[in-house]
Amino acid sequence: MSAAPLPAPPLRLRRLGIDTYQEPVLYMHLECPVCRSEGFEAQSRVEMTAGGRTIVATLNVVQGGFLGVAEAGVSEAAWRMLQAPEGSAVALRHPPPLESLGHVRAKIHGRKLTAPAVRAVIEDVAAGRYSELQLAAFVTACAGDRLDQEETIALTRAMVDVGERIAWGGGRVLDKHCVGGLPGNRTTMIVVPVVAACGLRMPKTSSRAITSPAGTADAMETVAPVELDVPAIQRVVERTGGCIAWGGAVRLSPADDVLIRVERPLDLDSQGQLVASVLSKKVAAGSTHVLIDVPVGPTAKVRSAQAAQVLARQLEVTAQALGLHLSVVQTDGTAPVGYGIGPALEAHDVLAVLRNEAAAPPDLADRALLLAGHLLELGGAAPAGGGRALAHQVLATGAAWRKFQDICEAQGGMRQPPVAPFRHAVAAQRSGSVLAIDNRRLARIAKLAGAPRAACAGLALHVRIGDFVERGEPLFTVHADSPGELAYALDYAAVQSGTVHVSEDA
Amino acid sequence: MSAAPLPAPPLRLRRLGIDTYQEPVLYMHLECPVCRSEGFEAQSRVEMTAGGRTIVATLNVVQGGFLGVAEAGVSEAAWRMLQAPEGSAVALRHPPPLESLGHVRAKIHGRKLTAPAVRAVIEDVAAGRYSELQLAAFVTACAGDRLDQEETIALTRAMVDVGERIAWGGGRVLDKHCVGGLPGNRTTMIVVPVVAACGLRMPKTSSRAITSPAGTADAMETVAPVELDVPAIQRVVERTGGCIAWGGAVRLSPADDVLIRVERPLDLDSQGQLVASVLSKKVAAGSTHVLIDVPVGPTAKVRSAQAAQVLARQLEVTAQALGLHLSVVQTDGTAPVGYGIGPALEAHDVLAVLRNEAAAPPDLADRALLLAGHLLELGGAAPAGGGRALAHQVLATGAAWRKFQDICEAQGGMRQPPVAPFRHAVAAQRSGSVLAIDNRRLARIAKLAGAPRAACAGLALHVRIGDFVERGEPLFTVHADSPGELAYALDYAAVQSGTVHVSEDA
Repeated sequence: MSAAPLPAPPLRLRRLGIDTYQEPVLYMHLECPVCRSEGFEAQSRVEMTAGGRTIVATLNVVQGGFLGVAEAGVSEAAWRMLQAPEGSAVALRHPPPLESLGHVRAKIHGRKLTAPAVRAVIEDVAAGRYSELQLAAFVTACAGDRLDQEETIALTRAMVDVGERIAWGGGRVLDKHCVGGLPGNRTTMIVVPVVAACGLRMPKTSSRAITSPAGTADAMETVAPVELDVPAIQRVVERTGGCIAWGGAVRLSPADDVLIRVERPLDLDSQGQLVASVLSKKVAAGSTHVLIDVPVGPTAKVRSAQAAQVLARQLEVTAQALGLHLSVVQTDGTAPVGYGIGPALEAHDVLAVLRNEAAAPPDLADRALLLAGHLLELGGAAPAGGGRALAHQVLATGAAWRKFQDICEAQGGMRQPPVAPFRHAVAAQRSGSVLAIDNRRLARIAKLAGAPRAACAGLALHVRIGDFVERGEPLFTVHADSPGELAYALDYAAVQSGTVHVSEDA
Repeated sequence: MSAAPLPAPPLRLRRLGIDTYQEPVLYMHLECPVCRSEGFEAQSRVEMTAGGRTIVATLNVVQGGFLGVAEAGVSEAAWRMLQAPEGSAVALRHPPPLESLGHVRAKIHGRKLTAPAVRAVIEDVAAGRYSELQLAAFVTACAGDRLDQEETIALTRAMVDVGERIAWGGGRVLDKHCVGGLPGNRTTMIVVPVVAACGLRMPKTSSRAITSPAGTADAMETVAPVELDVPAIQRVVERTGGCIAWGGAVRLSPADDVLIRVERPLDLDSQGQLVASVLSKKVAAGSTHVLIDVPVGPTAKVRSAQAAQVLARQLEVTAQALGLHLSVVQTDGTAPVGYGIGPALEAHDVLAVLRNEAAAPPDLADRALLLAGHLLELGGAAPAGGGRALAHQVLATGAAWRKFQDICEAQGGMRQPPVAPFRHAVAAQRSGSVLAIDNRRLARIAKLAGAPRAACAGLALHVRIGDFVERGEPLFTVHADSPGELAYALDYAAVQSGTVHVSEDA
């Protein structure tokens, strides 16, 4: 007579202190009875439940002595997601088959995604059920122009539906968004205080960089906290009229936040995902009137007026389907805006503009006033054609600067942006006129120098298109947080000597 | 006066015993001076050199006490790739920017890959410079029919060029390949001994499963070693005329071996990659005459005669460009071949056929004889139309079985395939005739049960299309190496009751 086997005692949660970036990883001992009885192996996807929360993690199998056979070790990402105390009982099982992956495969094979298919994929993505590989496949399948208008609307709606929403109780709620690709274009940090100083409501949530050296949230974070939750955003806006917060902290579009973490290392753009990413956050943030700034230039994200029109059309149709008023402005995208590229360097430019300093970059001020003017008209604070003058007045009188300080204080306290400990100037190899500046290569250099992860990293431009430079004069200075990164960025800059193109004839 | 800082002592290699499957991972302490000075962070790609070998690994940053600040911990995959003794000095640096990724991005955005672009990508892939995410993006960008004829030829050539090649010194060298999708189709293990028993040369290298429950290499490995290097293959073929080895062990197409490791979890097929994968290995193996078996059926990998013709055409044109004689046979792909699905279960079927056992699956024997007949004619051992009769004779007299045993012994020794410790029969829910069998769902069940990783896992079919079954009679038995996997496969089988479709009217 044989007794039924006794159930094995539950595994105990152990924080191993291993930072795998955002990927939740579970570490189990090769001899762990659960690992063996379930047939888990390295890279298995495992559903783990501890302290009432359930996540799906990728398994690494450990033979070393640092993990016990009755322990379920977790990476920092898994630890943050579970929020359970060390030693908690952990239940493990095979996750249910990921049925929505069939829709991704169908899309890869050229079939169109239906609205329910998109919804199923996005629910699974937001719930963390997709592995990094599966996320990469989905992002790749939707890259370029592979999502049509209906798919884009469905994706936007699905992204809104799986996240939080902010309610503002009626009235116009303004918002703006710049379709990136233009280094240094930190107008938001000027536009919000200008608009709020005119009595309008502008609760701005911004993203961190996806493929660029800095997002607005990255730059803003160097002067004030940006990780605000929904009640904090509501409190800040109630007090000041505006805020500049990180959208990811409020889970306005949690699926988008997950997708961004594979989009960034792949450095891939997708028009449909771009539209869905932007508009899902606007809808979720409770915005009613949205201005979209599309910089156009040969090395900007959008390279021609025609491409900008295609994008504008997709934005407008999608916004309409979701009940948003949307207006698109094409702006000049031929050269970087301001002098700095990188979170702190861009913040320094913004502060100079807000303080009306003589050394402030005039192009950044101009663009910010143009956009603020449009928004003041959209919001009814200025008559048609009168927005820009009002914006200029608010900036010149220092009202915008006072409002910006109020917003920073309300967000948790204003601080000074950091300055990089390692810097090196790249000089002109000949005398001549600056004919062109390659935004993409500049962005690449800033990223190799450590931006946006290292807030102080990036580069500061010293010249503008049309300037005359002498041989040996600095074109730009690379800023880095470590000597290795400085060297890495300078190595690349050395072989890309046409990044700032100086004419042959002095 | 300040002295120059002393160079930091080199980091020391430490094997941590962490199995991350095939991904090389480097573990560094958060306080490690190299990690800090280079600006490495979690998920950075880091080039590491130890004992003369250089690899690119993904960084995980460790805060726990199990790793010292002067140690460079490595995962099992990185440990295997470096082959350096523990304690070796390790040099780390940022890898050069991965320029070939620009070609992958261009492909994702719909531009065609040139031959030099494909070559650059494949060199970097074979050298291990692509991260898992980047591999997933490349595989996705080439999935379905996204590679045209020229791209496919370029991909095949690039895959051959980056790997080893076997030289046979003149004369016909035969080969065959089955374009998968048909569970249990293990004809190779019968065809090779039949052909070799007739005095022809057939050095067969096979792959492990990509998206199926078993590849030929997985099934063969349950009866003999398959990890032979080039000299071993040459020795086995010299002695016996044939071999059935794993292609991955000889690095005939190392780029393909890397791509397969992301194709498998993504469960994605690509026609161009399929053609390149198959033909690059044939060219590298020194084959001159190749027979391709394309099973066609509604639930096979190739679903229609038309799709088979498109594939055959791409195979023929690519083969011609690479100087191979190639012949394609379409076969019946409407039902699984043999009774077993999974490495060991398929090997049991093969052994039964070779031994002329009464219980041997007749369909497997038939297909093997058809293919062997074609090959005997291609190789000049039989007159046109006379191949099949010769093959039948060689099988019936036991000559093929003796040859198979010789091959197994020459490969390192014959062994018995394992039998699964956990089995459960799935019974018919009503009486009736078997109208259809869904290959894809059967394959899914076998994979959920643990195939091909667990060699004994899979399922054994008890019925054929057209059979009459009584309610409660077993349709198939699921085999697993652990109770968890058995339950997982049975859960899926329970909700997919139409996998074996029994008619309504008993």
